[in-house]
Amino acid sequence: MQFTSEQRFDDGVVEREFTLGEIPGILWTPPSAAAPAPLILIGPPPLGLNKVYSRLAGRARHYAAEYGFASATIELPGSGDRPRWAAADQARADLRRAVQAGEPVGDELVDALILPLVEKAVPEWQAVLDVLQTLPGIGGPVGYEGGIISIGVRLAAVEPRIAAAGFFAGSRVPAAIFEDARRVTVPLHVLLQWDDEGNPRQAALDLFDAFGSKEKTLHANMGGHTGVPEYELDAGARFFARHLR
Amino acid sequence: MQFTSEQRFDDGVVEREFTLGEIPGILWTPPSAAAPAPLILIGPPPLGLNKVYSRLAGRARHYAAEYGFASATIELPGSGDRPRWAAADQARADLRRAVQAGEPVGDELVDALILPLVEKAVPEWQAVLDVLQTLPGIGGPVGYEGGIISIGVRLAAVEPRIAAAGFFAGSRVPAAIFEDARRVTVPLHVLLQWDDEGNPRQAALDLFDAFGSKEKTLHANMGGHTGVPEYELDAGARFFARHLR
Repeated sequence: MQFTSEQRFDDGVVEREFTLGEIPGILWTPPSAAAPAPLILIGPPPLGLNKVYSRLAGRARHYAAEYGFASATIELPGSGDRPRWAAADQARADLRRAVQAGEPVGDELVDALILPLVEKAVPEWQAVLDVLQTLPGIGGPVGYEGGIISIGVRLAAVEPRIAAAGFFAGSRVPAAIFEDARRVTVPLHVLLQWDDEGNPRQAALDLFDAFGSKEKTLHANMGGHTGVPEYELDAGARFFARHLR
Repeated sequence: MQFTSEQRFDDGVVEREFTLGEIPGILWTPPSAAAPAPLILIGPPPLGLNKVYSRLAGRARHYAAEYGFASATIELPGSGDRPRWAAADQARADLRRAVQAGEPVGDELVDALILPLVEKAVPEWQAVLDVLQTLPGIGGPVGYEGGIISIGVRLAAVEPRIAAAGFFAGSRVPAAIFEDARRVTVPLHVLLQWDDEGNPRQAALDLFDAFGSKEKTLHANMGGHTGVPEYELDAGARFFARHLR
């Protein structure tokens, strides 16, 4: 892992950009503490880290300053400055065309967009996690939150180091990922936007129901995809504080 | 309003039992503060205040000590030490018999149990609120939480002093109350137990959907009727802190 920049904020939180092989990412660490900081992996939306930097950094810095958590995010395959991925671009365009035309969105369109991303992103998160856990000041249980929910569900199903996960039920989920959901057993905190334009509410409730976890909480709020209320930031942090300490 | 007992706890919270006419109740007030304390009305479950005292008092004292809220509860008509109410006892027995026999619970059973309670309890809450608002140290916006959800929904629909409400979607709701729900516009915080034995999940989701409020949050947790997780206590308090300050 190569660190390519470092910035220290007034509150003592340190932000470092890194690359691991071809994967760029950002790591935030809290002011140095006696005990190693639990780590939260923050899944990005598929827009490129540059475009969502302020939102992700806001969350990460809140976690670090208020709760003493480290957190990290990585660029998705085919997003941001990473090499274009023609098949993913095509699948996204196909899905968008169907939605804009008001056509029913078939399983094959969702599968074509989501499953290759899951197959590629999950091992990348695992590789990054391998290295992050060797860094001084980071230790203990690991949380995952955000991003494309299918990636998080698969990661939580296959990666035993994930001890708790916070998902945003805000994108379509292939049937194969419902199978993963049944195998997830860690505590879950799931956000749902009640009137999310592109995502059928019933499918999100069905996914929540499918998770194998004994402890799972659904926070449903009014409004569309981008309307998650600000107070959910701290509700998520408190969820992790219950499970990563 | 007659105060019939007073107890001061080590943390400065004061608990006073009162009667207003034939209505007994309990008032908790925070350690004296510069500004008047917002008031939360805590609806009791229909078991008699004696049986649920420790649970209600735990919530009220947390609100007072940690958030500076006053809160009050009153005995439901026909419950606890209040005069028996034969029609209500009969309706409860009829409903219980249907549930135990595995019969479908018809609307008329639910209406017979819930609507008379709503008609009687809502004006009692309003009368108690009239007096509580004249007490020194109490002022500002009023919240309502808990209890039989239909009572809270009607109260929030007809009583403009209620500025925010927290409901537990844990009992059956007559169709008439769905009409009230559409007229509710204050911020809402709704708890749902995902596997509540006696209460169909879909009906609870439909009620949440029906509320007219622009800001409403649903917290769904795993488990049966009595399994609301402990952390929801503070989540509810934080909801009121956002809206009653």
